[in-house]
Amino acid sequence: MEQITIKEVAKLCGVGVSTVSRAINNHPDINEETKRKIMDTIRQYNYVPNNSARNLKRSDSKTIAVLIKGISNPFFAEMIQVFEREINQKKYSFVLQHVEEFEDEVDVAVQLEKEKRLKGIVFLGGLSSHTNEKLKQLTVPFVISTVDVGELASNYPFVAVDNEKESRKMVDYLCECGHRKIAILTAAEDDESIGLLRLKGYQQALAAHGIPYDQNLVRRTHKDACYSTYTMENGYTLTKELMESGQEFSCIYAISDSMAVGACKALFDAGKRIPEDFSIAGYDGLPLAAFYQPAITTIRQPRAEMAEATIRLLFDLIKKKPAEKRQIFEGELIKGQSTRSIAG
Amino acid sequence: MEQITIKEVAKLCGVGVSTVSRAINNHPDINEETKRKIMDTIRQYNYVPNNSARNLKRSDSKTIAVLIKGISNPFFAEMIQVFEREINQKKYSFVLQHVEEFEDEVDVAVQLEKEKRLKGIVFLGGLSSHTNEKLKQLTVPFVISTVDVGELASNYPFVAVDNEKESRKMVDYLCECGHRKIAILTAAEDDESIGLLRLKGYQQALAAHGIPYDQNLVRRTHKDACYSTYTMENGYTLTKELMESGQEFSCIYAISDSMAVGACKALFDAGKRIPEDFSIAGYDGLPLAAFYQPAITTIRQPRAEMAEATIRLLFDLIKKKPAEKRQIFEGELIKGQSTRSIAG
Repeated sequence: MEQITIKEVAKLCGVGVSTVSRAINNHPDINEETKRKIMDTIRQYNYVPNNSARNLKRSDSKTIAVLIKGISNPFFAEMIQVFEREINQKKYSFVLQHVEEFEDEVDVAVQLEKEKRLKGIVFLGGLSSHTNEKLKQLTVPFVISTVDVGELASNYPFVAVDNEKESRKMVDYLCECGHRKIAILTAAEDDESIGLLRLKGYQQALAAHGIPYDQNLVRRTHKDACYSTYTMENGYTLTKELMESGQEFSCIYAISDSMAVGACKALFDAGKRIPEDFSIAGYDGLPLAAFYQPAITTIRQPRAEMAEATIRLLFDLIKKKPAEKRQIFEGELIKGQSTRSIAG
Repeated sequence: MEQITIKEVAKLCGVGVSTVSRAINNHPDINEETKRKIMDTIRQYNYVPNNSARNLKRSDSKTIAVLIKGISNPFFAEMIQVFEREINQKKYSFVLQHVEEFEDEVDVAVQLEKEKRLKGIVFLGGLSSHTNEKLKQLTVPFVISTVDVGELASNYPFVAVDNEKESRKMVDYLCECGHRKIAILTAAEDDESIGLLRLKGYQQALAAHGIPYDQNLVRRTHKDACYSTYTMENGYTLTKELMESGQEFSCIYAISDSMAVGACKALFDAGKRIPEDFSIAGYDGLPLAAFYQPAITTIRQPRAEMAEATIRLLFDLIKKKPAEKRQIFEGELIKGQSTRSIAG
């Protein structure tokens, strides 16, 4: 029998989700009749409350840890919610561990594995090719989510878009719009993760269009910056520097939507118009890109689908079922109002 | 001796933070000489790596849990980072527990307390006045962060701005700008948390300016919405409905910046200009408000200071030191370009 959700219970009873929640949690401030109706419906439809507290009780020794690098990155927020839902549905409990940008998540994972008797691990973001060797220290199954770098991607289970290809797709489009002076806002020089892949995609697209690669148009995150790479603050700072450098450009490609928003703001502050004076493109497909004015041209990563696939793959590995260990998802080019064609 | 930070170590050695991290974590891909220099500096200045893995090892039995309602709310992101830093500095470890919008965080906390031998708890967001009684079940010290509702705020330790007063401050300002038809985008009807307080502040300001309270201008989040209250999606939907209702208004006050961004987008989609045709105000003081175009008028909550005060208060309670149990911070009205005066 298919389980029904809390929303369906609410609908059946003609009440809000929070009222169902109050009934389940035995709150005093709920009408007795409403409560009885809700509890009857719950029994009738065999609804099992998907409640962290109950899950914790049920499955303390069956824990999945999600290690997240960059908790302030809105790209990950929706994925975390999917992880939690999917993990709870499997009657496992869920531990979220934040990892600082400079920390090594594999060290953190090794330690967590010892202490929490983990059954599985998800690495969300962050891992770079230099962690390849270290991952051998882990004894439980793990899946790398959203990152497809170098040897990691050939040696370990992962779920991601092809970052190099998707980045090339974006820059191809910008070139087809007639842009030849395309600046890129990218990660720090020593980045060996998705920042490097997106930069490679940029280089490949330029080469395919016969446009020389110009180091002066590559604006890298400062190593000692007091903000993270994929932020509005960083996009703003790098764009101000680009403008001050006097370099000629007609288009900026930022490797995240948040950075693209920062780039737009720096141009607006200088009295420029988008896209009339400059075209701006981002990457990720966040709600932010759609709600910004103008809407930002971006690559949409299928976040929810990737999150579901991550957990499915992890449980296949835990249960020793056959599974496709390297899962590449397609990104989608979303054309917003922030870019325009300048082709003759 | 004052401890130095990883950034200072990096600066002293003339390398990036990630290089220091690699040296500490014993990565293979680092020049031996650079590594020796870094490790010498670390010893010389007595730097203690603020590393989750080490902290976990050191203090498994000294754990603080942070329960967060609405992990996708960017308002909380910066606070989480401060919590982690401050908790680690005290040599405690840090567990982040996500709570769904419909879940009862006190139930989750009670269960966590049993299982993880917690020393303290932070409730970040979410708690509403109906949880007042339930909090008695907790046996370890806790602090409620960013919420100052009703009896909770008089019975339990909390750190927050005065949500009612700050909201009144904003609507006072909008009234002083000459607006009399001010719509509010607010939480669902049954909200008993900060949504209710911000609505009260709105009502008080209108009353103080002799403006009748008009239910038609109060746009409440739908109980069965498939998105959370404080999101761009919600602000967009509520504003579309407001426009379709035919109600006259010159200004929209959204009770979060994300909702305000959604409101702006709905107006832009309808071909309206901001602030020429409509003024828009938000609440929270997120980077998003400053980076949006136009920059959104908002109430800045001092997030980092509130996060630090939360942990300070929690440790005072743990150590049984005397402490001010109810800490109110001042918000700041930030005037952006999204509002204008229409006073004659």
